[in-house]
Amino acid sequence: MELPSAAMLVIGDEILSGRTRDANMHHLAQALTAHGIALKEVRIVSDDHAAIVQAVRALSATADHVFTSGGIGPTHDDITAEAVAAAFDTPITIRDDARAILQAHYDRQNQTLNEARLRMARIPDGAQLIDNPISAAPGFTLGNVHVMAGVPVIFETMVKSVLASLNGGPVLISGSVRVDRGEGDIATHLTEIAEAHPEVQIGSYPFQRDGRFGANIVVRHIDATLVETVLTRLRTAFPDAT
Amino acid sequence: MELPSAAMLVIGDEILSGRTRDANMHHLAQALTAHGIALKEVRIVSDDHAAIVQAVRALSATADHVFTSGGIGPTHDDITAEAVAAAFDTPITIRDDARAILQAHYDRQNQTLNEARLRMARIPDGAQLIDNPISAAPGFTLGNVHVMAGVPVIFETMVKSVLASLNGGPVLISGSVRVDRGEGDIATHLTEIAEAHPEVQIGSYPFQRDGRFGANIVVRHIDATLVETVLTRLRTAFPDAT
Repeated sequence: MELPSAAMLVIGDEILSGRTRDANMHHLAQALTAHGIALKEVRIVSDDHAAIVQAVRALSATADHVFTSGGIGPTHDDITAEAVAAAFDTPITIRDDARAILQAHYDRQNQTLNEARLRMARIPDGAQLIDNPISAAPGFTLGNVHVMAGVPVIFETMVKSVLASLNGGPVLISGSVRVDRGEGDIATHLTEIAEAHPEVQIGSYPFQRDGRFGANIVVRHIDATLVETVLTRLRTAFPDAT
Repeated sequence: MELPSAAMLVIGDEILSGRTRDANMHHLAQALTAHGIALKEVRIVSDDHAAIVQAVRALSATADHVFTSGGIGPTHDDITAEAVAAAFDTPITIRDDARAILQAHYDRQNQTLNEARLRMARIPDGAQLIDNPISAAPGFTLGNVHVMAGVPVIFETMVKSVLASLNGGPVLISGSVRVDRGEGDIATHLTEIAEAHPEVQIGSYPFQRDGRFGANIVVRHIDATLVETVLTRLRTAFPDAT
């Protein structure tokens, strides 16, 4: 059950400072799961050239696909494109195809393609553009790294367009039962069931609600029948499960 | 303006699958900022021994403090304690002090300290326990790594207790202005102001709302007067700022 793997790199001082709460990671995690790609790791780093270069190199070496979010706008703190190019030792310049897209967009809006906006046409040599139907400035794919905008509505359309071009594996089927008891009460049975089905992913996710503890037990496999078999075993072991 | 640095490691299959949305990262980011510690990197990895060991080693080597979230419960998929011990080549056993805490807790609740619950007393040699006033099972600090529970209400109390023992740097003062124009419109002035104040952190965080683009420009420094000076320059350069 080896699905294609993915990693995500969020470039985001504003998330690390606690100023904003990440939304793109949650969106990408759901989109990848639905597409049959396993998200294995996420890293969030600050707007720092060396940190981005190092993370891109590490993640692109271990995951089949890397998705980045943020840092490709026109302002002084948008340094992702250069850092990704540097990670691949690839030259980056203002590229004619990206400049033409921006020129057409700002012409339509009666705005000027000024020097700051032109920064958004910096694309590494050999990269493929990712369409941005919302604000024109394209993302790009270099090697196995897909570089996308941080503004959620743009990020989401770019993810959609990238995923349309990627082969996913078989989609994991999941099911869950909820037990309103502490995990310590259910762990022994749970271990037995997990050991009897080593090929199935069985995760126990504890929660606390209104002062009481419980756990959601989530079962995942590409075979829906097998998922149902394990769920039935869980319901038998925990008759109070819902 | 070098603050003490921190990194966070979230152990969370459920976040990588998109099933749940992380809450602890956002909480920790805010708590660290308020304490004068700079969160430099976050990694989210799956419940995989090798992945956790590797991330703990990498982060503990570069950050002053590492905070982990998740994977210290009683179930088969709770493998964080062993992985952190392995990262430091430290033996891990059921420790008497942790066992006594759990025994007292379950005695009070008329519950049994069964084998599964006893897993929560596995603490690496030399680690210091982190108090858990909610469900007793302690976290621990080994070297510069603080290992905490994933359930948000417990994570938050553990963060509070750990931070009380850590020296923070001077707290960063931040202020922001919002400009309801695309970043391409403001980037030139913004770069000039950023270059005139290289010691001040100035970030531009674009957003899209109701189909219109804007940006929040956030200014950070330990000196409130300097923050105000830069904010005044920004308001002068962008008279439409709010």
